[in-house]
Amino acid sequence: MTDAAPAEALQDRFSPRSRCFGCGPANAEGLQIKSHVAADGQTLVARFRPRPHHLAFPGVVNGGIVGTLLDCHSNWAATWTLMQRAGAQTPPCTVTAEFHVKLRRPTPLDAELELRAWPVEVNEPGDRAVIEATLSAGGQVTASCRGVFVAVKPGHPGYHRW
Amino acid sequence: MTDAAPAEALQDRFSPRSRCFGCGPANAEGLQIKSHVAADGQTLVARFRPRPHHLAFPGVVNGGIVGTLLDCHSNWAATWTLMQRAGAQTPPCTVTAEFHVKLRRPTPLDAELELRAWPVEVNEPGDRAVIEATLSAGGQVTASCRGVFVAVKPGHPGYHRW
Repeated sequence: MTDAAPAEALQDRFSPRSRCFGCGPANAEGLQIKSHVAADGQTLVARFRPRPHHLAFPGVVNGGIVGTLLDCHSNWAATWTLMQRAGAQTPPCTVTAEFHVKLRRPTPLDAELELRAWPVEVNEPGDRAVIEATLSAGGQVTASCRGVFVAVKPGHPGYHRW
Repeated sequence: MTDAAPAEALQDRFSPRSRCFGCGPANAEGLQIKSHVAADGQTLVARFRPRPHHLAFPGVVNGGIVGTLLDCHSNWAATWTLMQRAGAQTPPCTVTAEFHVKLRRPTPLDAELELRAWPVEVNEPGDRAVIEATLSAGGQVTASCRGVFVAVKPGHPGYHRW
């Protein structure tokens, strides 16, 4: 499988009824991020075309939308990483503990953007992952992110939402 | 003026035609954050009620929306801070260089949220501010942020957008 492979997105495979603003397939007003596993088996790739109202100012994507793309896509990289590590068939429900976005240059609004996210650290019990990610346009990185994501336990409102 | 004073929001006063997804008064599909100057003259306060599609999972606000609120509101704290420091009548056009969001507990979707942001550092030329901010619900902080914001110069696509 290459980066461009049309394999089913993780969201469609594991959480088709999710209404998450960033990545829920069932939220028509959301961003509907579609994250695919790249050829290396651990990097997640997504392509995204902003809508006109996602602007910061004419021609440039809002930083909060940039953050939403990086956060949700990275969260899926975390859950994929922890699922693979556990040898599980279904992903744990992970939530964001923190994320740090650097806006390196303006992200163009009228362009197809590419998201990439990969694990840089997993803790020993296997319930916490540090993920790094980039957002690019035309092969140039416009923003980057480092985030910490944790698998939640029963009782948390995010448990078993998938 | 108290925190609850109905004085005109900075966005309505200085950028009524902005269509920024986070804080543009003219973006009907955006968050339309309304930032007010608190009694201390430097803290900005905003109240925000999430819309149903802003969820992460049932009852909880998406982390990217949380980040958008903190980023845009903090950007206004930066521009307000730099404008006051310069003794100017209009705000400089600031953009986000980076922002670091910590999600401390779930942010409830069906609640009025409060944003607060204040300056912690301004550089010597007065074109860069570090801002800290919190998001609260029912008096409890659900998320916090530290961001760096810079005033852009002529030629930057964000210059003179207000």
